Amino acid sequence: MKESQQPNLYIALIHHPVIDKNGKTIASAITNLDLHDIARTAKTFAVKYFYVVTPLKDQKVLVERIISHWIEGAGSRYNPRRREALELIRISENIEQTIDEIRNQTGRQPKTVATSAKPSYDDISYPKLRKQLKNGIPHLLIFGTAWGLSDEIIAKADHRLAPIIGPSKYNHLSVRCAAAIILDRLLSQG
Amino acid sequence: MKESQQPNLYIALIHHPVIDKNGKTIASAITNLDLHDIARTAKTFAVKYFYVVTPLKDQKVLVERIISHWIEGAGSRYNPRRREALELIRISENIEQTIDEIRNQTGRQPKTVATSAKPSYDDISYPKLRKQLKNGIPHLLIFGTAWGLSDEIIAKADHRLAPIIGPSKYNHLSVRCAAAIILDRLLSQG
Repeated sequence: MKESQQPNLYIALIHHPVIDKNGKTIASAITNLDLHDIARTAKTFAVKYFYVVTPLKDQKVLVERIISHWIEGAGSRYNPRRREALELIRISENIEQTIDEIRNQTGRQPKTVATSAKPSYDDISYPKLRKQLKNGIPHLLIFGTAWGLSDEIIAKADHRLAPIIGPSKYNHLSVRCAAAIILDRLLSQG
Repeated sequence: MKESQQPNLYIALIHHPVIDKNGKTIASAITNLDLHDIARTAKTFAVKYFYVVTPLKDQKVLVERIISHWIEGAGSRYNPRRREALELIRISENIEQTIDEIRNQTGRQPKTVATSAKPSYDDISYPKLRKQLKNGIPHLLIFGTAWGLSDEIIAKADHRLAPIIGPSKYNHLSVRCAAAIILDRLLSQG
């Protein structure tokens, strides 16, 4: 193969457009632990960047404040390991801007992969996506906050990843834990 | 095989004895999202009970208050799915009491499995433990808060599970995300 064997994976955590418990499209609030947990998981699995996507100005300021505390402020001295993880975070206005940035960085159009807790007839499987990531093409894995990604984001994505199904019928993992399981399935070694 | 094929798995989240960043033994504070995230993951993977282990009386009261809000209070009406998960939580004084309770429930002495971010020469592998879980013997998987389980808990456990190693050398996952990955590796279907 001419392509690199190193996965070229980016992730995005979407705060708009996502749906609420009634299926209505909303903009969700930033959850501090989403940033920490997903950044630490992203660092563990050598994800390139973790995009926190929100169009709300005050929420962007909040993300900047959290990052700055842990990268330059008191947090960076208290826990340098946290700094290493939070350095992966980029703030983005929307999914289109995120895709543009990845294209500018890599010179290639990234393939987008939406995640969902519900199965669909054309879901891509974990082994198939794991193999596809080895072709060197940048991929953007998209996670939704609140009750999940809006239909329009899912419909526009190049792929839709199969949901995580456990032995029970319960399918209400937190986005932090779902992201951890998905990155492990796609990028774990050996 | 005469034994049940259904894993008989319990998990415990330890708040004492755990270590702080300097390696000193401490009792850590309850983190609200640990309860929610780990309960939701436990429910997904059909874990029997999720023991929250702390000797501190005020912390036990806090756990009771959180559970009660989501099982009987306003939270149970707002989000019944959260109730289903938090119903798996049991509060326990220490690891010995947890083991006693499992023995009383099942009539068998559970095998204990400590988790750690650091590798050891005699770690049990994921495929091996996954297979062992099918023998029907109750197993208790033990997670540490703060900077991890104290050496005494690890030394007393029947097994020590291999750490999660990603493609990077960074090994600082949150306990919520580590628990999610570990339960997926041990209990996912197909």
